Amino acid sequence: MASKTDTQVATVYVRFKEGVLDPEGVTIQKSLAMMGYDKAKSVKTGKFFEIELSDGSTEAYRQLQEMSEKVLANPVIESFEIHWPSDSAVGK
Amino acid sequence: MASKTDTQVATVYVRFKEGVLDPEGVTIQKSLAMMGYDKAKSVKTGKFFEIELSDGSTEAYRQLQEMSEKVLANPVIESFEIHWPSDSAVGK
Repeated sequence: MASKTDTQVATVYVRFKEGVLDPEGVTIQKSLAMMGYDKAKSVKTGKFFEIELSDGSTEAYRQLQEMSEKVLANPVIESFEIHWPSDSAVGK
Repeated sequence: MASKTDTQVATVYVRFKEGVLDPEGVTIQKSLAMMGYDKAKSVKTGKFFEIELSDGSTEAYRQLQEMSEKVLANPVIESFEIHWPSDSAVGK
């Protein structure tokens, strides 16, 4: 079982904010349609970062939140969502 | 409640296979360390695609599986994971 002193992996999901153009997604959808995949009506792209944290301390969590805001996502056009290790445990 | 004739959104997660170099992740980790975020020991990058399917038919699912294999992921270096709408319902 994971404890606060164990290495933990958190995932940060970054996507475009509502209303921001996603040209890569549009291009992929058009390509898919041309290839005959007519069931795909729209495609939105996003990225994620799996970050190995040295421990599960409050400080590690604080750093993860701050690096997501300042480095991983561009707050002007992107939003982010952090899945803490504890969330994954709940999901499984 | 979603039925088979409703539009559904599936998500395809694409990540590098084990052993494939992820230079973007390495660079981000180094930058984070230089910025003082010492808790982030490693960073792996990945991408995801939120695909709106016109319906939840077997054919739509077949197309999603095939486009993931042939278009969204590069099978030489990447693996993918599809989260069907039904999975999300289970997760919530």
